[in-house]
Amino acid sequence: MTGTAQTSPATTMISFARGAPSTDIVDVEGLKQAAVAAFDNDPAGVTGYGTAVGYVPLRKWIADKHGVPVDHVLVTNGSMQADAFLFDELATSGAAVITERPTYDRTLLGLRSRGADVHLVTLEEDGIAVEEVAALLDGGLEPTMAHVIPNFQNPAGYTLSLAKRHRLLELAREHDFVLFEDDPYVDIRFSGEPLPRMLELDGGPMSEHVVYASSFSKTVCPGVRVGYLVGPPAIIERIRVRATNTYIAPNMVAQAMVYEFMRGDRFPAALETVKTALAERVGLLDTALRTHLPQATFRRPEGGYFLWVSLPEDEGHDVARITAEAAARGVAIVPGTDFLLEGGENSFRLAYSAVQPSDVDEGVRRLAAAIEAARR
Amino acid sequence: MTGTAQTSPATTMISFARGAPSTDIVDVEGLKQAAVAAFDNDPAGVTGYGTAVGYVPLRKWIADKHGVPVDHVLVTNGSMQADAFLFDELATSGAAVITERPTYDRTLLGLRSRGADVHLVTLEEDGIAVEEVAALLDGGLEPTMAHVIPNFQNPAGYTLSLAKRHRLLELAREHDFVLFEDDPYVDIRFSGEPLPRMLELDGGPMSEHVVYASSFSKTVCPGVRVGYLVGPPAIIERIRVRATNTYIAPNMVAQAMVYEFMRGDRFPAALETVKTALAERVGLLDTALRTHLPQATFRRPEGGYFLWVSLPEDEGHDVARITAEAAARGVAIVPGTDFLLEGGENSFRLAYSAVQPSDVDEGVRRLAAAIEAARR
Repeated sequence: MTGTAQTSPATTMISFARGAPSTDIVDVEGLKQAAVAAFDNDPAGVTGYGTAVGYVPLRKWIADKHGVPVDHVLVTNGSMQADAFLFDELATSGAAVITERPTYDRTLLGLRSRGADVHLVTLEEDGIAVEEVAALLDGGLEPTMAHVIPNFQNPAGYTLSLAKRHRLLELAREHDFVLFEDDPYVDIRFSGEPLPRMLELDGGPMSEHVVYASSFSKTVCPGVRVGYLVGPPAIIERIRVRATNTYIAPNMVAQAMVYEFMRGDRFPAALETVKTALAERVGLLDTALRTHLPQATFRRPEGGYFLWVSLPEDEGHDVARITAEAAARGVAIVPGTDFLLEGGENSFRLAYSAVQPSDVDEGVRRLAAAIEAARR
Repeated sequence: MTGTAQTSPATTMISFARGAPSTDIVDVEGLKQAAVAAFDNDPAGVTGYGTAVGYVPLRKWIADKHGVPVDHVLVTNGSMQADAFLFDELATSGAAVITERPTYDRTLLGLRSRGADVHLVTLEEDGIAVEEVAALLDGGLEPTMAHVIPNFQNPAGYTLSLAKRHRLLELAREHDFVLFEDDPYVDIRFSGEPLPRMLELDGGPMSEHVVYASSFSKTVCPGVRVGYLVGPPAIIERIRVRATNTYIAPNMVAQAMVYEFMRGDRFPAALETVKTALAERVGLLDTALRTHLPQATFRRPEGGYFLWVSLPEDEGHDVARITAEAAARGVAIVPGTDFLLEGGENSFRLAYSAVQPSDVDEGVRRLAAAIEAARR
């Protein structure tokens, strides 16, 4: 029909917005086998209520991974639920809390909705500006908690240096606040050397100032919604009571499946698949940005899902307009303003975890056109 | 060895405390097949994040079951998590809330921990004393919510009559409060005729005053932790936002498994197995109570997991002592005092869901001995 022929071909949306893996890099067959193994090996444990500590064998597996006794560990329905429980304890109304600027939008929302007094501290390419933290503390701030995402930070993709990890711990001990090490991306490192966790630097089982959170969303899949906390037993016990009163127990079926998958034969190869795919995608994105957006600045991450792009400040960008123009051209991004309480108008976050390699260049082309259009 | 021979044979604990099914009446094979089907049929939906509304096909299945559009439904990580979200909305500090006396201990805890002003109304054998509710309302009480467990109530096992369902609805409309119909046991009816839900009596999709909750813990298994809410879209939407900010999405793996199990061939037989087993257990319990505890009063339930036993008040029982003496004799019960803010010293709850038929008589024998011992 002539009418149809005259319209431009339908544009498929290319999403740099979704912080999730594409399904093709998830080991669906392995997960299915793990589910079967879970029912075969422990039918009573999988089908019964369980308790708020989580599926007992998985809790033990996590404790062993981090070299702590099991009473330091609580397994939850995803790590955001773990964050929520910890925030309920420490980020109460009026409590001073330090976070990175920019930081994960849901973290900001979770803290602000509880009425916490949030202090955002500059995030540099080697992590949070520790001397800015020190200055706040010297100025009399008495935070209950400092929240940091040490590896491949969301949204920036930056990693906290070893020196800064030590300095942050020193400050936490001196001023007696909890260092919340929120670390979902740690195992998705595709280049460079891993750094020790602050949990370990603080003595692992002897740690008094670090609460560590991580997740299986990035190494297994998001749909299992399994995350966990590791921390001093007194805090973990308070959160266990809170979890019991909220949902009795987290998901036993999913946690048993994760346990079988992690200890099974297929996990190493499955993780390698994810890392290889993400390394390829970030390489293509790096090239595409240099080609189509030479004016942009960004740091190529060594792992994780995200890359933070800044446009020249003196060009007066309006990222809300850029986002809208991008959507109109079939490319989705998240504006920088989402990750800040103020500012961010010349920045945006690109997630490369869900984008197909063949779409990266075209996506950035569209984005470049959107930026151009938004300036008019 | 003589030393061993002289001790009494080890006593295995018989539990009337656990409100959960024994593993032998769970269709483990069917659940395993459902898990495989979930991964085969919808790998992207099962492994991806999903959204806070729940697994979309299961949400639709629930909506169809209750004859409402999908925006009336939110699927959660167990129905207690659903309760918690609703309480966060309606049972805020100082809000007046009506519950049954006795009622589920975790409901009382959830309401009181939020600072709600809880008014307990007598539970009769045909349900909450509606004229006592009316008197409270006439006296000026303006509740945000009345919480009732209409079928096979926990802890009493009683069922709300049709006349009282109508009367409660009338009061909810007249005084504009939410009737929270908390109904996890409804599908576990093994005798008598089912009564219409208050959700239906209030017009189903047109209902403005009922929020309905149910669960798959009793029909599928507790370890899946899948529950749901059905209610007016405005309330459901507020809870959806709250759920998003708490955990992004509930468990997709478990919800997809439940969906496949519910629409699969095996579910009808699996449910029949549960009902037949519970009917047998309650029959044995009824006989054992009449034989060993002729002084006790109770009403044999037509479904569910629980039976409420009262001892003659003028005998001055102390249920804390009874519970301790029972534990010493290898039988677990939950004291009546757990389900009330005051009173209950001559009552206890017996759960027959997890006890093996061959243990019922012996368990009640031990309990009778414990009651006798506690009076000394």
